[in-house]
Amino acid sequence: MFIAMNRFKVMSGSEEAFEQVWKNRDSKLDEMKGFVSFHLLRGSRNEEEGYTLFASHTVWESHEDFMAWTKSQNFRDAHKNAGSNKVLYQGHPQFEGFSVVEGA
Amino acid sequence: MFIAMNRFKVMSGSEEAFEQVWKNRDSKLDEMKGFVSFHLLRGSRNEEEGYTLFASHTVWESHEDFMAWTKSQNFRDAHKNAGSNKVLYQGHPQFEGFSVVEGA
Repeated sequence: MFIAMNRFKVMSGSEEAFEQVWKNRDSKLDEMKGFVSFHLLRGSRNEEEGYTLFASHTVWESHEDFMAWTKSQNFRDAHKNAGSNKVLYQGHPQFEGFSVVEGA
Repeated sequence: MFIAMNRFKVMSGSEEAFEQVWKNRDSKLDEMKGFVSFHLLRGSRNEEEGYTLFASHTVWESHEDFMAWTKSQNFRDAHKNAGSNKVLYQGHPQFEGFSVVEGA
């Protein structure tokens, strides 16, 4: 099992617009081999720095399945409009990939 | 659904000891109401700063179920030996809790 997360620091006031981008997208992840699940997660608000942490959270059967997706037309289609929306971020999205050590 | 993650920056060379701590523990999480799943995740190694990112990843049915666990004897038992092991960290573990916005 492999978990791919992208962390987004969404500027306070842009949270709803950010959620709408994800709710309105036309995801075809479930056409990909090895795709298990996708969730958009909302973390806590950092009052001091003025952002809310969000994370996309995708579970794949293996790292290889994830890598195959990143090289696919499906991936390019999913990201072709990235950057064109009005959501304001602090910095760039930060990718983190995880492999399972323990647990079931 | 609520996802509780604790992020650990484990000093290079301590990775195996860290994994052993988790593999050898006597978890009773599955006795708790609302517990869904637990995984220990290994992220990437940061060569420059000399650590490997790990994260504990626990899924609960709700934020309330997670909070009830943090106030339980089960939680105190699970953490009573924390700090007594030989694993070296950079900084303290960092907690992040997430609620599901979108996806199923």
